[in-house]
Amino acid sequence: MAEPPNREQSDGCHADETLLRSMIAQLSNWGRWGVDDQRGTLNFIGPAQILAARECIRTGEVVSMTLPYDSAGPQIGGIGRNNPQLFPLATGTDYLAGRQDPLPGSWGPARGMGYADDYLVTPTQVGTQWDSLAHVFFDGCMYNGRSAAEVDSHGARHNGIENYHGRLVSRGVLLDIPRLLGIDHLAEGTPITVELLEAACEQQAVEVRTGDALVVRTGFLEHRRSDWGDFGRGGDAPGLSLHTLPWLHEREVAAVATDTWGVEVRPNEIGFFQPFHIVGLTHMGLAIGEIFDLEAIARASAADGHYDFFFCADPLPLTGGIGSPVSALAIR
Amino acid sequence: MAEPPNREQSDGCHADETLLRSMIAQLSNWGRWGVDDQRGTLNFIGPAQILAARECIRTGEVVSMTLPYDSAGPQIGGIGRNNPQLFPLATGTDYLAGRQDPLPGSWGPARGMGYADDYLVTPTQVGTQWDSLAHVFFDGCMYNGRSAAEVDSHGARHNGIENYHGRLVSRGVLLDIPRLLGIDHLAEGTPITVELLEAACEQQAVEVRTGDALVVRTGFLEHRRSDWGDFGRGGDAPGLSLHTLPWLHEREVAAVATDTWGVEVRPNEIGFFQPFHIVGLTHMGLAIGEIFDLEAIARASAADGHYDFFFCADPLPLTGGIGSPVSALAIR
Amino acid sequence: MAEPPNREQSDGCHADETLLRSMIAQLSNWGRWGVDDQRGTLNFIGPAQILAARECIRTGEVVSMTLPYDSAGPQIGGIGRNNPQLFPLATGTDYLAGRQDPLPGSWGPARGMGYADDYLVTPTQVGTQWDSLAHVFFDGCMYNGRSAAEVDSHGARHNGIENYHGRLVSRGVLLDIPRLLGIDHLAEGTPITVELLEAACEQQAVEVRTGDALVVRTGFLEHRRSDWGDFGRGGDAPGLSLHTLPWLHEREVAAVATDTWGVEVRPNEIGFFQPFHIVGLTHMGLAIGEIFDLEAIARASAADGHYDFFFCADPLPLTGGIGSPVSALAIR
Amino acid sequence: MAEPPNREQSDGCHADETLLRSMIAQLSNWGRWGVDDQRGTLNFIGPAQILAARECIRTGEVVSMTLPYDSAGPQIGGIGRNNPQLFPLATGTDYLAGRQDPLPGSWGPARGMGYADDYLVTPTQVGTQWDSLAHVFFDGCMYNGRSAAEVDSHGARHNGIENYHGRLVSRGVLLDIPRLLGIDHLAEGTPITVELLEAACEQQAVEVRTGDALVVRTGFLEHRRSDWGDFGRGGDAPGLSLHTLPWLHEREVAAVATDTWGVEVRPNEIGFFQPFHIVGLTHMGLAIGEIFDLEAIARASAADGHYDFFFCADPLPLTGGIGSPVSALAIR
Repeated sequence: MAEPPNREQSDGCHADETLLRSMIAQLSNWGRWGVDDQRGTLNFIGPAQILAARECIRTGEVVSMTLPYDSAGPQIGGIGRNNPQLFPLATGTDYLAGRQDPLPGSWGPARGMGYADDYLVTPTQVGTQWDSLAHVFFDGCMYNGRSAAEVDSHGARHNGIENYHGRLVSRGVLLDIPRLLGIDHLAEGTPITVELLEAACEQQAVEVRTGDALVVRTGFLEHRRSDWGDFGRGGDAPGLSLHTLPWLHEREVAAVATDTWGVEVRPNEIGFFQPFHIVGLTHMGLAIGEIFDLEAIARASAADGHYDFFFCADPLPLTGGIGSPVSALAIR
Repeated sequence: MAEPPNREQSDGCHADETLLRSMIAQLSNWGRWGVDDQRGTLNFIGPAQILAARECIRTGEVVSMTLPYDSAGPQIGGIGRNNPQLFPLATGTDYLAGRQDPLPGSWGPARGMGYADDYLVTPTQVGTQWDSLAHVFFDGCMYNGRSAAEVDSHGARHNGIENYHGRLVSRGVLLDIPRLLGIDHLAEGTPITVELLEAACEQQAVEVRTGDALVVRTGFLEHRRSDWGDFGRGGDAPGLSLHTLPWLHEREVAAVATDTWGVEVRPNEIGFFQPFHIVGLTHMGLAIGEIFDLEAIARASAADGHYDFFFCADPLPLTGGIGSPVSALAIR
Repeated sequence: MAEPPNREQSDGCHADETLLRSMIAQLSNWGRWGVDDQRGTLNFIGPAQILAARECIRTGEVVSMTLPYDSAGPQIGGIGRNNPQLFPLATGTDYLAGRQDPLPGSWGPARGMGYADDYLVTPTQVGTQWDSLAHVFFDGCMYNGRSAAEVDSHGARHNGIENYHGRLVSRGVLLDIPRLLGIDHLAEGTPITVELLEAACEQQAVEVRTGDALVVRTGFLEHRRSDWGDFGRGGDAPGLSLHTLPWLHEREVAAVATDTWGVEVRPNEIGFFQPFHIVGLTHMGLAIGEIFDLEAIARASAADGHYDFFFCADPLPLTGGIGSPVSALAIR
Repeated sequence: MAEPPNREQSDGCHADETLLRSMIAQLSNWGRWGVDDQRGTLNFIGPAQILAARECIRTGEVVSMTLPYDSAGPQIGGIGRNNPQLFPLATGTDYLAGRQDPLPGSWGPARGMGYADDYLVTPTQVGTQWDSLAHVFFDGCMYNGRSAAEVDSHGARHNGIENYHGRLVSRGVLLDIPRLLGIDHLAEGTPITVELLEAACEQQAVEVRTGDALVVRTGFLEHRRSDWGDFGRGGDAPGLSLHTLPWLHEREVAAVATDTWGVEVRPNEIGFFQPFHIVGLTHMGLAIGEIFDLEAIARASAADGHYDFFFCADPLPLTGGIGSPVSALAIR
């Protein structure tokens, strides 16, 4: 384990730190799946969960929960992230101008043929995405007690996003909080509490089980869609309360995803930055998905009353990656 | 339709051109699903196919068919493509050195917290990938008669890879040709014929149906895995014969994927570059997947004798993208 | 010469087009230095000019005219350009965390040694820069009648910025227009006329000669420095009048640079976009420098009354590049 | 000063370490120009040096010492560096295909006008380049005792390459060692000693003075130009001996540049990696230039017998950059 950086105790947050450390002590999954584990709560997903998820495929409908990756995305500046850029290596306009000869054997435009090709330059956490277990550190460590030193300029030696690849398939459950409350979207700063989660389960006639991917809608992405503001750079947002973590822990939820930039409510509820991440991601090893676009799945779920589905939102195996964009699908 | 670039007739390939144009006339799906269609043969996938695919989930096992995206990949130079690069925006080593203060509210290392973040720079066709229907042109056009001019420095105005998003879920069928032949891998230049496909179907007790994703193993990726050579830049390879296209057309196959860089056999069978792409991708609108890693699925299929599975290999919605990396999963 | 794209005549700009074409006919340098020339007015610079420039080195002072390349730059969104990004390949924090072993022979941190390295991702026209002669087209052509088709996804086959390399050394002359007028900066939309240029020459006791690099200060960059607004994406700006081109042509100026994003006044004076570029860059082959930071050279020139200097602002030989960032120096 | 990483003493290199530390003690310039200095030996360049350099402009000839930045460069894989890539934002082929309307006011192709634009993606040390004083660490520190911790994912807080901007103008002296020896190029592993430097000064009738940029030719770049091999990734090379540092120190040389990837001879002369960098760059603060293309300047110098020139090789002010590509010019 790494030497932690110096920590100066702020008097005002003594109680906050006590709370945080108490939650860590209570909820930590370090060692639970072995000292070498790099998958955290995705270990809750096994064949039984996938077979159960299969039963949620009822109509053969596929609903995307991924926001398109393009210049209309939410990364409008700040913290070094830009919206994704595609750069061409070859274009149709080149081809039309006769610029693609010679292809091998002079088989390009002179014989009718041409092609296009391109490059992608993007933050891994640019839009709909999973955080890897290498994303957040506390007291010098990431998930399972690995030193933060293992995340350097060459990427994450452990806990990289490749460890999630092939594992983000399970039963998905949508809890639509604005629908529960009869509003369009939750306001910035609104915490989603255990009470709200349970009320949504009841209203939406769905239960949360071991290994589920819990998808919580706030409506906030839809609210900001045409005018992102600080959505992509850490602004205030509704989101899960820190105090839902024991509930998620008890239910053995494998993953939680929301339609906000950071899953948890902002401003934060205690005097630590992103405490839900500190306890949930770093210590529970909970898979966290962000900037999911839940408009379509909310509509589909409301239409037929089924709030569970076959959840397939598997990240790219970017070796050592801190996150990954993802095609997130609800198959119903 | 765009004005095609000048084409100079080569005497020697008159018969080849006649063949090519005859196949195009016979197999083209332009207009079949409307003049605005951008999905081609993925239209063969509908709720019925997905419900049928559900029945292929038998044990709850998930098998990845994606090659890791990293510096060990096959892009070792040539045609402008490099292996993917991940560049850090924030690292654990920065955090340990106390470099992440101030986070908001000075909540960084001084209170124990830190984070990592990164950027991805990659060709979209760097490894396991789908070609979009904007990837190949013939006679000035791409799929469905759209002008190649629509693919410019801003990407593909039509037929971009985002049109495949949410559509690459169906029943998958593996045909393991080396297993059929009792060899490790097919040699460069070996065409996979209709006879081989049918023999594999028979040996492997599986049939190909409307809307299927046909996954054809050559063993070639495994053969080159530790020493790629020209694998990533258009070298000779085994692959599907041009003459399998009528068979694929008749069976209404939605997608075909192989463990080679370009699906079709190289050197090409006639005097055109990548004629399977010209006829299949550009005119049939057939979804083409490349550089799938089929070692694990071949082993799993051989073990229990099931060669069909729930196929989920859905691309990222990269607006205007020519291709996309993909998490390709066989759920069994 | 390439086939030009279709041009639809707008009734209202018939007179404008007549003017534009008349200027082109009068000022074009196509063929002047041979049909293969790719340097345009930089041909005015020869040994005599450099020897004359040498005489402008009077005190041994070096003054930078380059804006730093970093996230504080003017590219705050729009037209696909972002401010430059530096991504690390290796950092001091990695090294301190012991992450750089093994260097060859285990000679890294275990023996005290470490290193840093990085990648640059930047638009070539991100800040202080030269346009290449491949930057602007008219009637299907770029400078010297080369087809626009020569500028494709592989860069500029002709007229790329590498043709300027080793040529942007000459006598520089600063004309400080706000100083002439006794104001801080020119307002958006203010054209700098021949009369103003001549008055500045007189007030500032300097004459413009064959082969000079003419540096014209508007004060606009300084005005916008802390709040760029639309500076980097084509907003209104003061700048050179189209009607200064005959004057520049007659004086055989080699290059002109300003402290604005596009040299010429915006909104444009006639019904064509950037007509100074169309006539000056595309037809005269005039070297155009943009976003030069002239605050320091203005101060130095005012202090000792010398408005000429040894001008060294030589671009990188980026083969096929459309522009280049540059270290622009006034050596006095 | 930072806490150094652990150093394990290797028995075999005790004498080497004694030598290294003795040279550091003897040659260090830390503090010489103040505790805040970030320019090192470039402080030797002042107005007097520039005025003296002016006298080296004899004929008005400009000779480039920069290798073109393109796909033919030496970065053929290894240590994360690729050759530079230019990606288009806009092309002539797009324009010819009518794809650039609307420009503002529909002033694009419909009125005859179009443009090209591009992006540069490159390691900063890809070819002809300066190392910044943030490039190499020893015992936890970089030049002037700054902690290596100051070089993180955001770049170099101190000693970044922007500190060299506007300073790399001085008198240049070429010492052509292969010419001295009557050979084409020095072989890998050949150290250039003080004796060779002095013999070259004598043969080439030039003396080295305070503030000079010393340019040492090995011929090695020319030897490898068409077949780079391991040139760009740390292979064996001829180069300056570690033991020339006292000579350079005594002469108050401001900068040293060679036509090799790393200035110093490889394999290294003692049991430390790149000891010339450890002593010269990190402790003396000596400006180090690499991969200079010296073929043309060698020919020009031999032709007229003048081995000194006006040296202008000023880096881009890439804020926090570890290195910079450069237009390196000899003005004669």
